[in-house]
Amino acid sequence: MTARALVDGHATGMVPLDDRGLRYGDGLFETIRIDAGRPVWWEAHLERLARGCAVLGLDMPPPVLLADELAQLCGSDHGVLRLLLTRGGAARGYAPATAAPVRRILVLSAAPPVAAAPLVLGWATLRLGIQPRLAGLKHLNRLEQVLAARECAALGTDECLLLDAEGAVTCGVAGNLFIVGNGRLRTPLLDRCGVAGTCREWILRTHAGAREERLDSTAVDAADELFLCNSVRGILPVGQLGARRLPVGALTRALMQRLADEQPALRHPLLAAAGRAAG
Amino acid sequence: MTARALVDGHATGMVPLDDRGLRYGDGLFETIRIDAGRPVWWEAHLERLARGCAVLGLDMPPPVLLADELAQLCGSDHGVLRLLLTRGGAARGYAPATAAPVRRILVLSAAPPVAAAPLVLGWATLRLGIQPRLAGLKHLNRLEQVLAARECAALGTDECLLLDAEGAVTCGVAGNLFIVGNGRLRTPLLDRCGVAGTCREWILRTHAGAREERLDSTAVDAADELFLCNSVRGILPVGQLGARRLPVGALTRALMQRLADEQPALRHPLLAAAGRAAG
Repeated sequence: MTARALVDGHATGMVPLDDRGLRYGDGLFETIRIDAGRPVWWEAHLERLARGCAVLGLDMPPPVLLADELAQLCGSDHGVLRLLLTRGGAARGYAPATAAPVRRILVLSAAPPVAAAPLVLGWATLRLGIQPRLAGLKHLNRLEQVLAARECAALGTDECLLLDAEGAVTCGVAGNLFIVGNGRLRTPLLDRCGVAGTCREWILRTHAGAREERLDSTAVDAADELFLCNSVRGILPVGQLGARRLPVGALTRALMQRLADEQPALRHPLLAAAGRAAG
Repeated sequence: MTARALVDGHATGMVPLDDRGLRYGDGLFETIRIDAGRPVWWEAHLERLARGCAVLGLDMPPPVLLADELAQLCGSDHGVLRLLLTRGGAARGYAPATAAPVRRILVLSAAPPVAAAPLVLGWATLRLGIQPRLAGLKHLNRLEQVLAARECAALGTDECLLLDAEGAVTCGVAGNLFIVGNGRLRTPLLDRCGVAGTCREWILRTHAGAREERLDSTAVDAADELFLCNSVRGILPVGQLGARRLPVGALTRALMQRLADEQPALRHPLLAAAGRAAG
């Protein structure tokens, strides 16, 4: 599939040079798995967009308009929808116009393949800057992730874990982290930086006892099971962190199965086809 | 003047939706004053771009190519050139392609007017995240500045001063800060965040004894003179910070005069025409 796109409802592959998304990263995005035309976790994506709009002072477009444009673009296809909201091009300089019209950009692409092998992780040396005003949001300022992805490439790992400036474990480069220790499922608090992902939210909602906590690297190094997760690839078990090998444990496997039952598009290839029971 | 633009040497006002500048803010920019076709502090802008390219892993375009495109776009006009380098659209996901071609975007606009009145400043409540890897660079991740500009608008001030996450004074929203106290000229160290501006650099080079230091807000509140500066408006004296009024003092005025003598395009309207002596 070649990418298809709509900008403010019009089929085009271009955006004006004065768009504040390009000039300043002044906007938000969502990366949404599309399963036969149906957006996975649509409500959660809309809720995060609305939170982001409130923080940035953008007018959230009507959800029904976004849903219409999604339907027009995606039909009954599979893929990944990238939905951007930028502050458009109304004002020059950092100060936005008071009633800037939000620009809606929707791009549909093929879903990336997920390898069957558990992830090999390293630790990035880059530390995420602490910015509580933007913590949890999926905004367009993602240079830290780009630099961390370059570290992964240099290390030769599938992914890297990131600490924040004060040394708290925060996330992977393109996914949230969960750790299992003493049978407890925990994920880093995202009140200082990081993106609060929709798959992370599904897990917190689904698994009784899952907790958000401030975690340091020793807790991660001592974990019995680890996994990353995101809205496009679902739950990605970790098989190795640095030199240490980890099993794909029972709790991780049970969550992967539950996710596959609820959202077949996010079924991980590690799960045997026979395991595909009704949820 | 309506904006004119070149993208990779071609006259166009658009950029593809997959541009990583739009997707992630994966790029750099310079805002350059153009005086009758001549770029002010061109070498300093190129040096900062080259530093940024090294940090982001971008191939710096040949300066002669950028100079040619600048000449083609600007002719003998006056204005402000916005020069962006983005990582183009070669790769999807945060990880950049290993040999991504850099996209060159040049946009020429009219220079903004400078008011004769000294600036009224407030303090922003937003604190800049600490990210030493990106400190000093003029990269495209500028949401903190957008949020701070919204604070200025709400306060009704011309500009706001920003602290970093550890409480050190860093800069204005769109300019660097200098303070004068006991006859000494100082500006915040920019090793943790902030943009190392070309006008700031000119002042550090020009004024013997000007120093970079870690400054806290009490030093700023106690200063005898304050000014902001940037590459487009030059030196902007501060007449009020919060409730406190400040004079446009002798040291500030002398620097404004020296700048006007060297770069007439950056002459502040406060300076009497009679003061325009040879530098």
